[in-house]
This record gives sequence, C-alpha cells and structure tokens, in this order.
Amino acid sequence: MSSAKSPPVSPLAPESLPDFPAIRGVALATAQAGIRYAGRTDVLYVALAEGTQAAGVFTRSKCPSAPVDWCREALASPDARALVVNSGNANAFTGAKGREAVALTARIAAAAAGCPESAIFIASTGVIGEPLDARKFEGVLADCAARAAGGPEAWSAAAQAIMTTDTFPKLATRTAEIAGVPVRINGIAKGAGMIAPDMATMLSFVFTDAALSQGVLQALLSAGTGRSFNCVTVDGDTSTSDTLMLFATGAAANPAVADPADPRLAGFQAALDDLLIELAQLVAKDGEGARKFVTVAVEGAESDASAHRIALSIANSPLVKTAVAGEDANWGRVVMAVGKAGEPADRDRLAIWFGDVRVAVAGARDPDYSEDAASAVMREPHVTVRVDLGLGQGRARVWTCDLTKGYIEINGDYRS
Amino acid sequence: MSSAKSPPVSPLAPESLPDFPAIRGVALATAQAGIRYAGRTDVLYVALAEGTQAAGVFTRSKCPSAPVDWCREALASPDARALVVNSGNANAFTGAKGREAVALTARIAAAAAGCPESAIFIASTGVIGEPLDARKFEGVLADCAARAAGGPEAWSAAAQAIMTTDTFPKLATRTAEIAGVPVRINGIAKGAGMIAPDMATMLSFVFTDAALSQGVLQALLSAGTGRSFNCVTVDGDTSTSDTLMLFATGAAANPAVADPADPRLAGFQAALDDLLIELAQLVAKDGEGARKFVTVAVEGAESDASAHRIALSIANSPLVKTAVAGEDANWGRVVMAVGKAGEPADRDRLAIWFGDVRVAVAGARDPDYSEDAASAVMREPHVTVRVDLGLGQGRARVWTCDLTKGYIEINGDYRS
Repeated sequence: MSSAKSPPVSPLAPESLPDFPAIRGVALATAQAGIRYAGRTDVLYVALAEGTQAAGVFTRSKCPSAPVDWCREALASPDARALVVNSGNANAFTGAKGREAVALTARIAAAAAGCPESAIFIASTGVIGEPLDARKFEGVLADCAARAAGGPEAWSAAAQAIMTTDTFPKLATRTAEIAGVPVRINGIAKGAGMIAPDMATMLSFVFTDAALSQGVLQALLSAGTGRSFNCVTVDGDTSTSDTLMLFATGAAANPAVADPADPRLAGFQAALDDLLIELAQLVAKDGEGARKFVTVAVEGAESDASAHRIALSIANSPLVKTAVAGEDANWGRVVMAVGKAGEPADRDRLAIWFGDVRVAVAGARDPDYSEDAASAVMREPHVTVRVDLGLGQGRARVWTCDLTKGYIEINGDYRS
Repeated sequence: MSSAKSPPVSPLAPESLPDFPAIRGVALATAQAGIRYAGRTDVLYVALAEGTQAAGVFTRSKCPSAPVDWCREALASPDARALVVNSGNANAFTGAKGREAVALTARIAAAAAGCPESAIFIASTGVIGEPLDARKFEGVLADCAARAAGGPEAWSAAAQAIMTTDTFPKLATRTAEIAGVPVRINGIAKGAGMIAPDMATMLSFVFTDAALSQGVLQALLSAGTGRSFNCVTVDGDTSTSDTLMLFATGAAANPAVADPADPRLAGFQAALDDLLIELAQLVAKDGEGARKFVTVAVEGAESDASAHRIALSIANSPLVKTAVAGEDANWGRVVMAVGKAGEPADRDRLAIWFGDVRVAVAGARDPDYSEDAASAVMREPHVTVRVDLGLGQGRARVWTCDLTKGYIEINGDYRS
C-alpha cells in the first residue's frame, strides 16, 4: 500500500517551535523500524527514571486497541520506566495477534530498559486491522535505550516520529512551582482526523520532573483533560486508540503534596491545563484539511454540562463547519445545531455572535446586523462562534476546525 | 441574494416517475409567489375534502420553526381542509414576525378554502432567519383553490414546487385494502441536506382516501415513521422544520376500524410503511453531493434500539462516509464508529461485511478476505455495510449516502 501524498502544512501551524528544555529523568530516542512508512522515523522510545509515576486517560471507545488495554492494566503496577510509541500501525482490531504484539513489544522494551514488563507503556497509531509485526522492535529499542537523550532536538524528533496525517509536529512546554520548588512540563501530541487510511488517532504524552503520587497525578490529569482534549473535536469521530498520558519523574524533589486540591498544586494544575489546552488547540489547527480554527463559546445554558453538549453539537455539525469553510456567517445553521443538541433551549432567547458581531438576538435576526461586518469576521483564519442561550449560568468552550474539500480528499482516497 | 448554481441530477435518481393516480378528496395547485426564487413554482396548495383527518410527526429540534408550532396546535382541532407549503424561506428563527407570517398565511388560506384557520396546515422550507412576507400569498392561494386538480400532472408539479437543493422530485404511490375496500396512498417529499444556504429541511406529505380517525391515523403514521424517516440520515443535522404529515379524506368510505392494531389495518400499515420507506430512501439518494446510496444493517445487538444507535453512528460518521465516497472498503472506520456509539459491543465478536464480502470476523481481519472482491462491492452505486455484534437479537437498518466534495461545494458556498 502506498502512503498518502503529503498535504501541505496547515496554514494554522505555529510559525516556530518552542525551545524545549530538558526534563530531568526523561530521555528520548527515535528510530526507523519500517513499520509501514519508508524514509521516516516511526518509533519513539522514552526512558523514564526509576520511581516515575504515570497517569492516563484513554478512548471511551467500546472497541479499544490492544495497546490501550495494555496501558490501562500497566497503570495498576507501581512504576513507569519506558514508553514505546509507533506510527504506521494502530494495532487495533487485530484480535489475539494484537495482544501478542503488545506482549512482545513490552518484552523487548523491558529488556532494553532493564525493568519489569509492567513498567512499559505502549501506544500505536496508524492503520487499523492489520497485524503489527512487533519483531521489528528487536534491536531497535535496545539501540534507542543506549542513545536516548533529553536535549531540544530529542523532543522535536519525538514529536515528528509519532505523526501520521499531521502536517506539523505539536509540542508545548510550561514551568510551574510546587511549594516553591520549580518544575517543568513538556508535552507532545499528534492528531489530524480521528482515524484515517494509513493513520489514526489522537495521542499525547506529557512529562514533568515534579514529584507527585500516582493518585494525585491522575486527578490532575483527569481535571485538565476535561478542560482541554475533551473540548476539541475535528470530526466527532472517536478513535479506538486515543491516549493521553502524564509521567512524573520526581527529579525536582518538591515536597510531597497528598491532596490534588491542595493550594500548593494550583500553579501546577494551571500550567498543566494551559499546556494541555495548547496541545489540544494544535490538534484542531491541524485537523485534516483545516483552513480555519474555530472557537465555539456557549453561555447562558442551564448548566456547564449542557453548554458543553450544545457547543459540541455546533462544533461537530457538518453544516456549520462547511459554512465556516465558505466564510458564510450562516447563523441559521447555528440555530439548527443548538436545536438538535436536545438540551434545554428557548428559541426566543437565543443570541448569536460571529466574532464581535451580533447576528441574532431574541429569536430573530439582529436588526442592526451588518452582513459586511460579519463577512469580515468570517474571512479571518480564527473564527469565534458565540451563543447565549439566555437561560442560566452554564458555559463551555470547545475548539474545532472547518470542513473543507481537503478533508474529503485526505479521507476519501483509496487505502491501497 | 443569488440562488445557488443547480447541481446535476443525482446519479441515484429513479429513471422515471411513478404514474400518479388521483386520491379522491385531494386537489392540488402550485404557483409562483416569488418568495425567493425567480422562474419557478414555490407554493403548493392542497385542498382537502370536508372531514379530512390529519396526523403529523415533527422535528425534535428544541428550536422549531413557526410553521411547526402552528401545525402542532392545529392538530388539536377536528378537521383539515387545506395545506400550504412554500419553498425559499423556512420562516424559522424569525421571532414574533414569524408567528405573524404564519397567522396571515392561515387567514389567507382559510378565506380561499372557506374554512376556519385551525383547519389550515402550513410548512415552509428555505433560508432560516429571514422574515417571510406572507402578503405574497394574497390572491395566490385563492387562485390556487380555484384551479386545484387531482390528476397526475398536479402531483408531479406539487413535488417540484417544494424542492430546494433537491435534484429530482420525490413521489411514491401505493394501494391497499381496508376490510375489503380498496384505498390509495400518494406521498411527496423533499430532502437534500438538512439545512442549506437558500434552502432546508425534510418535508413529506402523504394523502389517502381511507376513512380513518385521527387517533388511528396518528398511530399508523408514528409507527411507520420509526421504520422509515427515522432510519434515514444525510449528515446527522436536524432541521428546525422537519415535517411529515398524513391526511385521510375518508372518500373510500371503508368501514370504521377503531384500533390501530386491528388486523384489518395490517395491509394499510404495510403499504404506508413501504411508501414512507421509498420516500425516505429517495431523500438519502438525493443527499447533497451523494453519489452512492448506503444501507447500514446492524444485527446481533443487545436490543433493536441499541442496534439503531450503532447503525446511526456508522451512517453519520464522516470517516465512514468519505471511505464509501472513495470506494475504500475501510472496515477499520466501521469498527471505530461501532466503538464510539457507546452501546454494548465486544471487539472480539464483531463481524463486518461490505455487500456479501466478509472483511472482518472475531475481532480481526477475515483471513479469507479478498481485497479485490471488496473493492468490486465498493464500486457499485448501492453499498451495504453489515455488522454483526454477536451479542443478542437486536437489529436495525438505516440508509444514508456518501460524503463527497459535492456536499462541501453545495454547503460551503456563500449565501449571497
């Protein structure tokens, strides 16, 4: 099977990559294992210092991939010592062979890292339903372990190795303090469509040198996910492999904090949230075929949860997304998407803005609405759709991209 | 605002229209009221004999259009004497002006029909949020009432007048018997995308000369809707105006049957279901940009309701729909869509077919699967995706179309 032709880099890509500091206790290496692609790296190996704690959030799919099953189980064991990520094959819907491939990968990685198999975490992204030949990792992972390093180039190479239909690597970095001790957080992600011919899935891996127990780490990550990755959508499709993991090496040796709600963790939580939001937005900015980044902000709903469901209904509506692609301030479609969400809404209290231009109010077109002003908003690369339901205090914000012919081209091509 | 360029007729359109018999008690006329379009009919007026009973099923949108609100209320009154449908303007999200426009339309139609306003039914399809100038119906409806007729040309003209982005008129006809008395059923529909720049919505109107009480009529229509229009999706978007109505003139003078489950109504229910299914399938075959008609059949689910939700998840997945457009037997995306439905599913029991070709079984690629055979299936204009969950006896079937660049073209154009 041929690999897809490379689409041009998204016009929404950041102009430059951040300068990536090292995270003490984290060393990375990439390699060409020949999983599916020729002439590019397709394996990332991350060595984690002894005592590293891990937390994870995984796909809600009822048909998760074999690596997702593995990671969920591995989280029950105490430590994390290595992460192995490959692109080119998702090892999803591969039955018993998939479970064998994961077990073999863990065995090879554990030998390379000198640790029990239960301390290995695995993620795979790429084609679904094709057996993954994990023997290709033999030698490769040991070599990675030998040359793993923590410099800026290693981080950039890591973000490159896990790409599939992504048109640019996604990285973010933050600093924070825990009880006066400075800590760092680095994260990488891949996105694009949720599943695609040669490729798949949202994967993100975040690393910190903070010293945090697994329970605290999981609480911080789960909270942050709700404010970031759970607020981003490209096409409403959910991959079998979605994986977000947070690893804490403890090298910063900050004082132990037992309660995730402890004010001494507020700065860390804020920095983590901020980093996760940046990564999630980068995923939307690199949605397949995306030319516009869209923020959907809903307020005045009966509850935050209701606002979130309405915002997702708008962000996932093909008719809203094609209107944005066509630079059409088509608020009728926004009304439609509010109406179909099934949440409490009163047509006669709705108000809708594109950017700062109010186009509808009190259940009808805004009498002062200027089509020219709205059109100017729609021509921008970043478009905000704001809806006030006029019912209560609930609010939510989600991010997405427009739906263009590029999406159809990328996803409508033959696999082979 | 310009009207959109006409897309070519869907390759899935029927080769010829059925020969439409008259329905005793139903007379139709169309006119050019200049609502929005130039040079085409945009109003349908249907005169209904005294004593006609009506039933309706409407959008589940929380932001319904003013005509939908009107019809829901009018159903509480005893008789139906006329139906007025316009294209070009949906009179949706038009606030108090929308309610005034509906009231004025009813007043003009009631004068033309010589009946109370509560016996008038109204449906509108077209642009959302623009005030509808109902004064344009003055004169037009009285003229329609004067020349309304029941011949085949009248039916065909009726189906034409309610079109928006539809590329072909949609009609179906059936015969049945009630207690030995022959009755006829005629139906028309419009579909396309759920909402579009100049246009909108699924509307369908069905007429019979059967004598049936309103309660029985509503029960038969509701049951039939569950097996037809509720099983069709183009883009998962729900219009503010979706309307399906069934009118029974009683001219056939069949014996009264009080219980909708009475075996004497089984033939009528079957014929009605069959007609509704044909109309619903015609809507999918004329989905915006559609080049392929897709049947999604799910079996082995825990319940029929669960099977229905899984089938809709598959039928609404942009990734599945673009794969069909690309003639790619990409069953990995079907697994994804099953997984994201949130319904009980066991990855290791799933089996998937494209047409008669089993591509996946027991949680992995079918070892005997021939890519050539699957590709041949995908090249056909009608594609069936079948999924067996292996859990229970629940089954469902839904119809949709592929997602092509044509959809983006039609919906991504400027409104003006």
